[in-house]
Amino acid sequence: MPADGTAELSVTLQNNTLLHRSAELNGEPAPEHLAQKAAYLDSIPKIEGKTPNVVIILFDDLGYGDFSSFGNKLVKTPNIDAFASQGVRLNQFYSPSGVCSPSRAAMLTGRYPTRADAGNHVFMETGSEAAELRRSRGWANGLPADEISLADVLQTAGYRTGLFGKWHLGDLPGHLPTDFGFQDFFGVHYANNMKPLHLWRGTTIDTPADKVDQATLTERITDEAVGFLRENKDRPFFAFVSYTAPHQPHVPNPKHKGVSDGGTYGDVMEDLDTNVGRLQAALRELKLDDNTIILVTSDNGGDFLGSSGDLRGRKGDTFEGGTRVPAFFIWPGHVTPNTVSEEMAMNIDLFPTVLSALNLPLPQDRVIDGKDIAALLTGGKTPHDFLYFLTSWGGQYEAIRGGTFKYRDPVTDDNLIARQRGGGGRAALYDLARDNETHDVTVRHPAEQKELAQQLDRFRQETASNVRGWIPAPAEASTGAADAAHR
Amino acid sequence: MPADGTAELSVTLQNNTLLHRSAELNGEPAPEHLAQKAAYLDSIPKIEGKTPNVVIILFDDLGYGDFSSFGNKLVKTPNIDAFASQGVRLNQFYSPSGVCSPSRAAMLTGRYPTRADAGNHVFMETGSEAAELRRSRGWANGLPADEISLADVLQTAGYRTGLFGKWHLGDLPGHLPTDFGFQDFFGVHYANNMKPLHLWRGTTIDTPADKVDQATLTERITDEAVGFLRENKDRPFFAFVSYTAPHQPHVPNPKHKGVSDGGTYGDVMEDLDTNVGRLQAALRELKLDDNTIILVTSDNGGDFLGSSGDLRGRKGDTFEGGTRVPAFFIWPGHVTPNTVSEEMAMNIDLFPTVLSALNLPLPQDRVIDGKDIAALLTGGKTPHDFLYFLTSWGGQYEAIRGGTFKYRDPVTDDNLIARQRGGGGRAALYDLARDNETHDVTVRHPAEQKELAQQLDRFRQETASNVRGWIPAPAEASTGAADAAHR
Repeated sequence: MPADGTAELSVTLQNNTLLHRSAELNGEPAPEHLAQKAAYLDSIPKIEGKTPNVVIILFDDLGYGDFSSFGNKLVKTPNIDAFASQGVRLNQFYSPSGVCSPSRAAMLTGRYPTRADAGNHVFMETGSEAAELRRSRGWANGLPADEISLADVLQTAGYRTGLFGKWHLGDLPGHLPTDFGFQDFFGVHYANNMKPLHLWRGTTIDTPADKVDQATLTERITDEAVGFLRENKDRPFFAFVSYTAPHQPHVPNPKHKGVSDGGTYGDVMEDLDTNVGRLQAALRELKLDDNTIILVTSDNGGDFLGSSGDLRGRKGDTFEGGTRVPAFFIWPGHVTPNTVSEEMAMNIDLFPTVLSALNLPLPQDRVIDGKDIAALLTGGKTPHDFLYFLTSWGGQYEAIRGGTFKYRDPVTDDNLIARQRGGGGRAALYDLARDNETHDVTVRHPAEQKELAQQLDRFRQETASNVRGWIPAPAEASTGAADAAHR
Repeated sequence: MPADGTAELSVTLQNNTLLHRSAELNGEPAPEHLAQKAAYLDSIPKIEGKTPNVVIILFDDLGYGDFSSFGNKLVKTPNIDAFASQGVRLNQFYSPSGVCSPSRAAMLTGRYPTRADAGNHVFMETGSEAAELRRSRGWANGLPADEISLADVLQTAGYRTGLFGKWHLGDLPGHLPTDFGFQDFFGVHYANNMKPLHLWRGTTIDTPADKVDQATLTERITDEAVGFLRENKDRPFFAFVSYTAPHQPHVPNPKHKGVSDGGTYGDVMEDLDTNVGRLQAALRELKLDDNTIILVTSDNGGDFLGSSGDLRGRKGDTFEGGTRVPAFFIWPGHVTPNTVSEEMAMNIDLFPTVLSALNLPLPQDRVIDGKDIAALLTGGKTPHDFLYFLTSWGGQYEAIRGGTFKYRDPVTDDNLIARQRGGGGRAALYDLARDNETHDVTVRHPAEQKELAQQLDRFRQETASNVRGWIPAPAEASTGAADAAHR
């Protein structure tokens, strides 16, 4: 975050009396959790036979209304839309948080962000004032070493793993992509508005910040990802293509400058679209497209100059515009092309869904909040009774969705004035099927409001009492904590 | 405004370094302007023959998406929608401000709010901390006595004039409804969240605040308005029915409590709908409906629990959700029933349109910003090249619309953090025809951006150099100031 973010964080820190804090924050992970992680990874079998590749294509701050197929009338995304038609479009897909680091922690670990000490806003550049402020509050500034990422599991199972693009889960040794299972890494440690923006290859600087051209980042990330696909076409691989765009600043590639009806933002989007088209072409050319599970989505809602469509709110909010993101899953032989699901799901589902598809065991020492959504992807119902959403600054659980209804019970960690405007600071039950979070329908649906409020409270208590979501080994489980944590 | 508003104002006052201030603020109006007003009113001819009645039905904080006919799927407004079908629906109708007092000043005077020293937020209850803060800044706290209201003109022309409901253009003698041409007044001096909320009849308290039941305000306002229609059915009249709803607090009438799918807000809305139906029925029963010009609209965008539809922003914003309001004009014999206009217009147009329809002269000593939109109402084009929009706190001109495009050049008078979020603090050109104010299309339309930016700057200079918009009498006009002010 630039100076603006620092100022905002400072204001928040001064005002905030309800901060989420963990006794384990900012320290070294306990040896037993590192040992449990190691034991779990040791238990992962090596893959045998033909097994699907895994590709995630993740955009940064791309809003629900930014694709043509999601209603945008200015930005043209023909490649992405054609790509999406090969799979199932998820119209009700979420990040648990309206900002980047929490969302990415959730997607890679299958756990709500607070489980990984990653709930309270984004990790800041080491050495910056914002990072010092985080430290002074006891907030972690990188993914804890005892967390297990999808790449850890897949690498152990024998996949070649690569991250191309943005990481944003720590910028110090021990918290880098290569510390969490990515054998190959080409990209940046954090968002493209943070400094210094070196381009890294593994743990060494490939291009120093002063030589990095923002205009060609999307293209270079794609080049590297395509190279990875070619190099590993004959073996199982996991490619995480994590674009820095369309996060601001918006610097269009000269090849797409001034072409979009959506202005500079549209230029950046259409450059992304072209490069996703290149990825798709490479998968087809390498005959990988019939054996690759692909998830395409965004980390949170639209921010500067991006579109939330007709959803309320934007990046950072627990309104739908902050957390609902466009998404599609391509899974040849499993998902019927050109289908749509209106069932709710979340990026935490990626981890268990992929592990289940590959017959790999889940960790047993920690809560995995995500669920296998394979059935949902083929027209089935969501496996979730409830989904939860965090505030972007304090990392507090502020909203819960259960089917049609969403209950939002604002906490006071964010800027008071901003939150009160338009009733955003008041608790309310919303009917998502018929309204974009304006009318409080509590009086019409008191039972639903009560159920969601109670469930949200229960989840708040559970996540506060067992912040990291550890599950004692069976011999220690006499207190029932494991059941509680599993709930 | 309650304590929240005071705190917000206080923050704003501390931060604001660009306040709009007038040398004439907070003082007594100059005798020459009072004399000019008197001379103008003296020039108004008495009406002769059959002349149309005028009815304004104004809602408070009702959002663009709050009627069924404007897309609401929870709130049912069958009476209002049926009423609307008798006239022309204006899909691009605006208030110049996202808050109440500026909007009302504009509607009644035909001038942008700053002309009446009413640009900077709402007038506060005399004696409140907020009112004292306004005073300390030199901000007016009521409509200046030298302003000319539509009621002043119509009363002088021989109409019986009545205001039923909310005034909010001052709460001290000299600034009350009866000081601006309303012979009959039954209602409240300000918003229904302000205290003490006495119900006034003329200049005496009809019902003291502690006896006022918010639940029946809409009904009582309607009762009084219907009584006025009956009493004056045989003479020309101007009825301004100014509902306090659906401004918060939302207290439903027991007759409509718990019935709406839109919850408590929906209950309040559906009570409004029923009461507008009563007004319509009275007009029909009294056979007034073929000779009455009716405008139905809201003062600004949706606030607490109200809907902006798919527009960006809410009450207080210069985004469309703050200033675009549902509106319809019924004008038998002039407007074709059940038509729709997508031409832009503003509530400042009411004053000149009505005066023109009645062949009454406009004031010549002051700028009238509104224009006669009679042609627009019958399928013609808008008479406006540009419309301007003010910030809700500092009353600064922040946005300009010229046809398809809107240029927004944020000023810093509002809360810094709130404004920066989502790029709302950055200057941008928006394509209103294809996008709800997300993508900056400046690079695709540089000429349009330049024209709008220049025109906005010109208007800022004009309104700053001649705050009240006085036009020197012809003999004094040798400096060309009159031309400049007219521009």
